[in-house]
Amino acid sequence: MESLPRPDLLVCEVNETLSDLAPMAGRFAAVGLDPLLVRGWFASLLRDGMALAVHGERAPFAELARASLEALLRSAAPDRDPREAVEQVLAGFLALPVHPDVVEGVRELAGLGIRLVTMSNGAVAVAERLLGGAGLGEHFERMLSVEQAGYFKPDPRAYHYAVAECGVPPGEAMLVAVHPWDTDGARRAGLSSAWIDRGDGGYPSYFLPPTVTADSLVGLAGQLASRAGH
Amino acid sequence: MESLPRPDLLVCEVNETLSDLAPMAGRFAAVGLDPLLVRGWFASLLRDGMALAVHGERAPFAELARASLEALLRSAAPDRDPREAVEQVLAGFLALPVHPDVVEGVRELAGLGIRLVTMSNGAVAVAERLLGGAGLGEHFERMLSVEQAGYFKPDPRAYHYAVAECGVPPGEAMLVAVHPWDTDGARRAGLSSAWIDRGDGGYPSYFLPPTVTADSLVGLAGQLASRAGH
Repeated sequence: MESLPRPDLLVCEVNETLSDLAPMAGRFAAVGLDPLLVRGWFASLLRDGMALAVHGERAPFAELARASLEALLRSAAPDRDPREAVEQVLAGFLALPVHPDVVEGVRELAGLGIRLVTMSNGAVAVAERLLGGAGLGEHFERMLSVEQAGYFKPDPRAYHYAVAECGVPPGEAMLVAVHPWDTDGARRAGLSSAWIDRGDGGYPSYFLPPTVTADSLVGLAGQLASRAGH
Repeated sequence: MESLPRPDLLVCEVNETLSDLAPMAGRFAAVGLDPLLVRGWFASLLRDGMALAVHGERAPFAELARASLEALLRSAAPDRDPREAVEQVLAGFLALPVHPDVVEGVRELAGLGIRLVTMSNGAVAVAERLLGGAGLGEHFERMLSVEQAGYFKPDPRAYHYAVAECGVPPGEAMLVAVHPWDTDGARRAGLSSAWIDRGDGGYPSYFLPPTVTADSLVGLAGQLASRAGH
């Protein structure tokens, strides 16, 4: 296999890629929702965000999260006051930890001299709190969000916004994400992509394959270490 | 409130609007998946379909269903052979019944002289089997699908295809669906919309409100009966 150059910029997805949703299970249980419903909730809020993105429209992530959780509570825990339960669950979302591989992985990636930014479908404040709390804030040059871009991922304009903010051509940037729809979108926008496969499922055939697959951010750093820069 | 004219054409969504996913619970249980995961699976397959729709692309519904189910099986039932389990579950999808209100509701809507067609993100054959099995095939003039349109809903071109096939201007057609992303998409494409609220959750504020809300197809027929035609 031909050795590709090392990307100049890594654009990191935040939700589930850096943050670990596992503690949401306890938050769900506390309001009478089965913890098995966490991933379906997250899928439904992204589904609605993408439905709007088809029209070039966008709703704030917090509003998507709140409405889809309210709908879930009304059907799965009808005895609760949904508004109170929603606040209780979403407070947990703002206090998530990073995945175990993230601290070492980010340090190794930064140690390679690759520029790092985040680009989230959620709010900048969530990424700042997440990475600040893990002591990783200094390694990220910028924390970017679709809220400033005006377009929800996987709209190509969201990726183009992120690389333009960094003054890097799309082809010299790599998106890093656990979500195949995100690595697919990045490739369609001209970036390369790294799919972080922590074992939550396969990579669907209908999405463009990732440029690189790694089992963790540490694994990604190992793969990129062997490449020469541009 | 001003009385609106009765639509000339009802464009009915198929999955979950006409078909009842409840028997999928047993299919999930039979392959070692918790029945609570059914709705999350369905949300994740639509999420992926919409991610492609953001790029004007489309994958067959069966492929979306299969890949998202395989991913779910790999993470939630890792001891199973995912391919065999997928076939077992999807066979259930092809044998779903209609919701209890659908037989009477469709007969009453047809009795009002309103033209009826289906427009599904899934295959025409699924709609034909579903409605044929319920003895309702004769009431539907056409069974349409995004597979012929070339665009996945909520792409406006999918709705425009359906009404153009029927020779009806968008403004004289009404989309009927349980999914708020679908009633939203129809309105953005210039159709009116009826949201069928069977109590599975609220209507999110970030989507355009439906023109009409009814608790069942029978309820919708009751509301349309009081309107004058164009």
